[in-house]
Amino acid sequence: MNDRSRALIGTRADEIQAKLAAAMEAHGFDALVATSPENVAYASGAAPPSQKSVRSRLAAAIVPQAGESELVAVSLEGPVAKAQSRLDSLRLYEEFVDEPVDVIAASLGERGLTDGTIGVEETHLPAATYRRLTAALPRARLVAADDIFSEIRMRKAPSEIEAIREIGAAAEQIALECCRSFGAGASERELANFIADRYAKAGGDGLTMLVVGSGPRSAAVNAPPTDRVLEPGDVVRLDIIGTKAHYHSDVARTAVVGEPNAEQRRTYDLLRDVHERSLEALRPGALTSDVYRIYRERMDEAGLPPYHFVGHGLGITLHEEPFVNGVGSVVLEEGMVLCIEPLTLLEGRYGMQVEDELLITADGYDPFSRVGDLLQLSA
Amino acid sequence: MNDRSRALIGTRADEIQAKLAAAMEAHGFDALVATSPENVAYASGAAPPSQKSVRSRLAAAIVPQAGESELVAVSLEGPVAKAQSRLDSLRLYEEFVDEPVDVIAASLGERGLTDGTIGVEETHLPAATYRRLTAALPRARLVAADDIFSEIRMRKAPSEIEAIREIGAAAEQIALECCRSFGAGASERELANFIADRYAKAGGDGLTMLVVGSGPRSAAVNAPPTDRVLEPGDVVRLDIIGTKAHYHSDVARTAVVGEPNAEQRRTYDLLRDVHERSLEALRPGALTSDVYRIYRERMDEAGLPPYHFVGHGLGITLHEEPFVNGVGSVVLEEGMVLCIEPLTLLEGRYGMQVEDELLITADGYDPFSRVGDLLQLSA
Repeated sequence: MNDRSRALIGTRADEIQAKLAAAMEAHGFDALVATSPENVAYASGAAPPSQKSVRSRLAAAIVPQAGESELVAVSLEGPVAKAQSRLDSLRLYEEFVDEPVDVIAASLGERGLTDGTIGVEETHLPAATYRRLTAALPRARLVAADDIFSEIRMRKAPSEIEAIREIGAAAEQIALECCRSFGAGASERELANFIADRYAKAGGDGLTMLVVGSGPRSAAVNAPPTDRVLEPGDVVRLDIIGTKAHYHSDVARTAVVGEPNAEQRRTYDLLRDVHERSLEALRPGALTSDVYRIYRERMDEAGLPPYHFVGHGLGITLHEEPFVNGVGSVVLEEGMVLCIEPLTLLEGRYGMQVEDELLITADGYDPFSRVGDLLQLSA
Repeated sequence: MNDRSRALIGTRADEIQAKLAAAMEAHGFDALVATSPENVAYASGAAPPSQKSVRSRLAAAIVPQAGESELVAVSLEGPVAKAQSRLDSLRLYEEFVDEPVDVIAASLGERGLTDGTIGVEETHLPAATYRRLTAALPRARLVAADDIFSEIRMRKAPSEIEAIREIGAAAEQIALECCRSFGAGASERELANFIADRYAKAGGDGLTMLVVGSGPRSAAVNAPPTDRVLEPGDVVRLDIIGTKAHYHSDVARTAVVGEPNAEQRRTYDLLRDVHERSLEALRPGALTSDVYRIYRERMDEAGLPPYHFVGHGLGITLHEEPFVNGVGSVVLEEGMVLCIEPLTLLEGRYGMQVEDELLITADGYDPFSRVGDLLQLSA
């Protein structure tokens, strides 16, 4: 870790701690208990590695309104948890021997919270675990805190913005470099390996969902790379989704192998125009539903099949509030980080997508990436 | 998909369907509803790609005792779900518009199960989702089916055994090839990229948790690769964990850069001897607790720090029943697939691990991989 990273982490701890405290104050909570990987990472800075792959290895960030915070994690990942956590203490449990939720209850008990109002993640905590926590703390009032976490995380702290900008800008460069480095005859897998290598070199933890879809596969949503070999005339859709130190990148680019034909150029230019119109609508006070409406109207005018959303918040999770779709509506605020990603899928033929990351600023938005003309791979 | 894969999938559907039906019969269930990624994949054959990364995109495999089964998935992943699912029908919901659990309830309702006994995964289904399902089906009896799924999945179907054997054997070969291909001066990341490339070429979906730990980092549990450069005398620990068509590989090997010193040789030989003694105890009827006891006694005799388990079941999840530890005890049965993985971590110095996959057979076990002498990388 370099000095700059260390300084950012110091800042982030203060910023996030202050936001959690304010939210508890506003909602009358005595403590927040984060258990989802995203909210544990947000509240504590730590991501015990096997938390996602082995569900029984529950982790929790316990943040009381008054007194010391504590991270609960499985003992075998104690060293990682200790190195990453910003909380005041660390409580480890033994796999197979201890029931993690009992250890969480014990931590709450020691903080004098057996009668408290405790915010938990009801959309994450499994039904059986929730029931056991209720039984262990019969006098406590467990309240859903899911929306509170989601609400707090919408407006990013400056250190979070820097983290997202850095890996997002890297993802954009990697996409461009990939297009310059390959052409007809290469397989989707080769492009994917190149992207994975460059992403690691940029300090990324890894790609969590990489799309490399060529030819008709470019029209498949979330298409992972295969052994398909690129042919002249193919559309290639890249979507570089991964994380660096918990924060996501999500940048998509579209290219054609060799000279694009007239229809490909036209579709791309229309899509890019829809993208620009959607971006122009971004500013504090704008409604996400209005941005989505602009997107839908422009897609209809262009005669392109639309998608059910055109954007989403980006942070510790890939898709988070504010969602830019036709269902909900959120007022945009300074400090939100969004992806805007018009996508059109012509099933069986090809799919095109342009996706940029950006920050909502006082008077508009600040792009972390900026799509240009239709990219070209050598034929 | 080649003909052999297609035939295996055909067989697997029959095998697994029969096991689910027998379990429902034994427990008096009218239906099983799988919602965890592992049990959705097991019961349906399908793994909607973003199910793990976007938690709100709940998927469910609904398997009634009588009548047609159905997979519930998010519409944007309909094509993948349709291509992979073995269930009778597919019901898609619109993200943001539909509440997935209401769609699951509707499916159960159409199957005449509003008064039924329905097995659900209480250790997966979030508390809020469980509550909503209860409200949508007020006359149904929701019963925990977690242990039933876990129990059924312990004894693998022949087609599952083939799937695990294939990617496990590939992982072993990749570890050996990696050790032959690199030496002092290479970074952990370079080894990792090589392994990722070969794993993809072997048909793997990807590595879910790769350990490349060199020097003192070999003593860190679950150590992801870093830019650390290998030096002569380093211990290198590799653990190749990933999936191919839902099924995991989990094979670990230990190497030294250049000529091992006397202590390294001695530690490795002791660990390998512990491994052999643990393997010798494997046969139908043996207790996992007895296997663990043998491991612990041998580790104590060897003077090596032991780990809190020496093995685990392997399948759609990385760690599943039967666990080979000192806490629970399971009687080994023909058809179980296990990893045996003695690991010793000398903190701050080095860690060594040997891990093989195997099948419990009528008279002992059949190894999918077989560790040999201490491996060597060029100095």
